[in-house]
Amino acid sequence: MKYYIMTLFPEMIENALDTSILARAKSNDLIDFCAVNIRDFSKDKHNKVDDYPYGGGAGMVMQAQPIYDCYMHIVEEVGYRPRTIYLTPWGHPFKQQMAKDFAKEETLVFLCGHYEGVDERVLEEIVTDYVTIGDYVLTGGELPAMVMIDAISRMVPGVLTNADSKETESFEDNLLEHPQYSRPAEWMGKSVPEILLSGDHKKVDMWRYEKSVERTKKYRPDLCDI
Amino acid sequence: MKYYIMTLFPEMIENALDTSILARAKSNDLIDFCAVNIRDFSKDKHNKVDDYPYGGGAGMVMQAQPIYDCYMHIVEEVGYRPRTIYLTPWGHPFKQQMAKDFAKEETLVFLCGHYEGVDERVLEEIVTDYVTIGDYVLTGGELPAMVMIDAISRMVPGVLTNADSKETESFEDNLLEHPQYSRPAEWMGKSVPEILLSGDHKKVDMWRYEKSVERTKKYRPDLCDI
Repeated sequence: MKYYIMTLFPEMIENALDTSILARAKSNDLIDFCAVNIRDFSKDKHNKVDDYPYGGGAGMVMQAQPIYDCYMHIVEEVGYRPRTIYLTPWGHPFKQQMAKDFAKEETLVFLCGHYEGVDERVLEEIVTDYVTIGDYVLTGGELPAMVMIDAISRMVPGVLTNADSKETESFEDNLLEHPQYSRPAEWMGKSVPEILLSGDHKKVDMWRYEKSVERTKKYRPDLCDI
Repeated sequence: MKYYIMTLFPEMIENALDTSILARAKSNDLIDFCAVNIRDFSKDKHNKVDDYPYGGGAGMVMQAQPIYDCYMHIVEEVGYRPRTIYLTPWGHPFKQQMAKDFAKEETLVFLCGHYEGVDERVLEEIVTDYVTIGDYVLTGGELPAMVMIDAISRMVPGVLTNADSKETESFEDNLLEHPQYSRPAEWMGKSVPEILLSGDHKKVDMWRYEKSVERTKKYRPDLCDI
């Protein structure tokens, strides 16, 4: 999977993705990132990429041309028009199932907006998927793009090893994770539940399942009908 | 507002937050970040911070002691026990209103989990708010913490200037933003809607309101009853 991130802040992307599981996946050639600076495609003598909105109002709007040229540069490199995601509050809510679907692509392009928004005409021209990661207002599309890249990469075959234990994670069976405990068995007067020390795997599994159901019922009854 | 981020990857935090509006807010002393490395509080000779889960299973669990000592170090610096947020799939869904509430605090602490999870006992001891930014599985709590810090900081008085135009943004009135256009008036055969060039502010406002309603109805009817 290769990700192209069209952004005005490429340095923000590169540092934050170079950690942990994603860094390992990258060094194993399973995923790759390329942050492309939209500003490099400005035809303005001051490298301007935004201008006032038609109709007036506060803030600046990112102009169509630099974004389009940046996109076409990526299309030429890739050889076809890959799925192109625009992060916006009016997008489809990002969910685990969507991460799995995107993970089937060979290339994904993210357009990170800033300022008051992006000229609508270039969105019509290049965007295939409008996505939001949640109902809150962020400064730009960079953080949500990184969130999506993290979630999607975990679904790319080979990225997670057994030790990462994808299959027991939250949402995989519409249940939240059970509580976890590690050494020491007693800490600040709090003991680990005895059953976890029993060595009886059947009982442990049952206890964990019950705790998952309990937690899901208590905190996220919307996740499943139990 | 001062943010303390308890993490195993402090370098991931520092780079990504030092951009754009947040960087300006920081240099104006309106907000400040401090990424605290949990590993610095390990008492293990190899600086280990995780161990096998009691009861068996794949993955490692972050142990209670280094996290607790890291937290107490922050508490000593702050002088009281600040609200402490743990990013977890079973948390309350983060929304714009929650960003506004958190923005009223003077200090916020984020605990970024990794691996299979965190020893339940230390969560019981220090966490005041369990929060999720959405229904997808991420590698760690760092990216969601940064997303929350971005959204919360925008609500801290003085961080956004008039030019950032918080008041016209999505969700502020439960309507999504209208389409935006900037120069040139014609681009790749696509013209800016004529009304935006009319100079009639009343008509422009009406058009924008209608487009906002239209877009909200089409993409996010759940946001409001219209």
